[in-house]
Amino acid sequence: MTAHLIGLIGSGIATSLSPALHEREADHHGLRYLYKIIDLDDVAPDDPGELIRAARRLGYTGLNITHPCKQTVIPHLDELSPDAARLGAVNTVTFDGPRAIGHNTDWTGFAHSFARGLPDAPTGHIVQLGAGGAGAAVAHALLTLGADRLTLVDTDPARARSLAAELARHFGSGRARTATTADLAAALRHADGLVNTTPIGMTAHPGTPLPAGHLHAGLWVADIVYRPLDTRLLQRARRLGCRTLDGGGMVVFQAADAFRLFTGLEPDPDRMLTHLSTLVTT
Amino acid sequence: MTAHLIGLIGSGIATSLSPALHEREADHHGLRYLYKIIDLDDVAPDDPGELIRAARRLGYTGLNITHPCKQTVIPHLDELSPDAARLGAVNTVTFDGPRAIGHNTDWTGFAHSFARGLPDAPTGHIVQLGAGGAGAAVAHALLTLGADRLTLVDTDPARARSLAAELARHFGSGRARTATTADLAAALRHADGLVNTTPIGMTAHPGTPLPAGHLHAGLWVADIVYRPLDTRLLQRARRLGCRTLDGGGMVVFQAADAFRLFTGLEPDPDRMLTHLSTLVTT
Repeated sequence: MTAHLIGLIGSGIATSLSPALHEREADHHGLRYLYKIIDLDDVAPDDPGELIRAARRLGYTGLNITHPCKQTVIPHLDELSPDAARLGAVNTVTFDGPRAIGHNTDWTGFAHSFARGLPDAPTGHIVQLGAGGAGAAVAHALLTLGADRLTLVDTDPARARSLAAELARHFGSGRARTATTADLAAALRHADGLVNTTPIGMTAHPGTPLPAGHLHAGLWVADIVYRPLDTRLLQRARRLGCRTLDGGGMVVFQAADAFRLFTGLEPDPDRMLTHLSTLVTT
Repeated sequence: MTAHLIGLIGSGIATSLSPALHEREADHHGLRYLYKIIDLDDVAPDDPGELIRAARRLGYTGLNITHPCKQTVIPHLDELSPDAARLGAVNTVTFDGPRAIGHNTDWTGFAHSFARGLPDAPTGHIVQLGAGGAGAAVAHALLTLGADRLTLVDTDPARARSLAAELARHFGSGRARTATTADLAAALRHADGLVNTTPIGMTAHPGTPLPAGHLHAGLWVADIVYRPLDTRLLQRARRLGCRTLDGGGMVVFQAADAFRLFTGLEPDPDRMLTHLSTLVTT
């Protein structure tokens, strides 16, 4: 029986759904597969580079990397996939002999989820809330999928400007702009879609990430929050008749894409989505 | 599903049977259990202390330790079981929060195997071939089980004397003596049993560990070699009508005793013995 040992390095990750998602899928493939939480809050020293070296020596097949290490891990890797290099963020590490290679399946996760959940959605102009790490991955996905224009809105305007400048560098000037929260209503009026990449809507951060009155029936609305899957934002949007996409797909596809990198096997995302829905309280 | 990650630290251990023995038994208990080979020939740095600290941080439940680390690992542990301390050798490490605790299931492995495989065998005087690490564990087991007198024979007489002195210290003077290979025939003449703890008889070290003519029908004969299970020594002894004990029991019971320490669950040694016999070519 082929065996795989995978770890998740990050902070405050005790309740991560990744172990369950990966292990259940691996069971369907007849793998002996163990996915361990390596919480920086519990281990010392917590230098991610040292943890990665130790993981390689102790037989790990690969690692997932999450907050706050997606950037800090990079100097400790021997190679980056082109996407991870462009994003400046790594959420997956594989080992090739002594070499540690960084990948990013956050953006492919959102891209696959979007293509599956909102096929043929218009992407002329998309407003994105949030310009943090998840926001960078989502913006990268939307522009890669061919979105003409992205308007970034963050409560920290400097962060939005910084991401917009980065995106402009890679995708061409004019494809990513910023707007202030004061301009949000105006920006949305002629937009095709809205994506929330902020944590607002999570059980721990209840509410909607924008005044619900800004929504209108001409938008599709995507959320990357997945606990709960059915956020208040999505509920309000559905009531207006908007097409919606919940955050489950991004979680599942980033896990599925990492699973493929770790094992070389093709995961079944539909099966994983069904599993996810049993793991989260909607 | 309860998950356990176990490692084996040692040198030249790629063909160890421990992963198969542990994982198969764990499967019967419905555990998610992964047993990794951490071969010092492949990892650098190969300091066992550092590997143990790394294993604890990376979510290992526990470790088995084998050649050449059974002694060198001790300074890196926080606590020793009384038996491991007495033997000066550790083959199993468990973690209790930040503490690493050393155990020895080699001697209990032989003791359980002997009690099961040669019940009521007379133990007035036993001749033991070999006074290395395995020999120390076997001698400890035999004297703990109540053997009156042990005669140690090693091709390195100093090693035999050193082990005899240690045993005398713990079990009382006179219970362990040494003999030279020249005296072996005489020592065996009035002995009740013979134990081989040398590697002679393994596929890689063919032959018998003593001239077969020294054997006689009044002996029981035990071997700790288990690849093959049916060594030439045991074959010759059976032909003389001797009761015999092969090395499978020691391997299985040391694994079973470690499994119990790791999981808190009661393994089924008979099931493991059946499995072992399918793993080794007899």
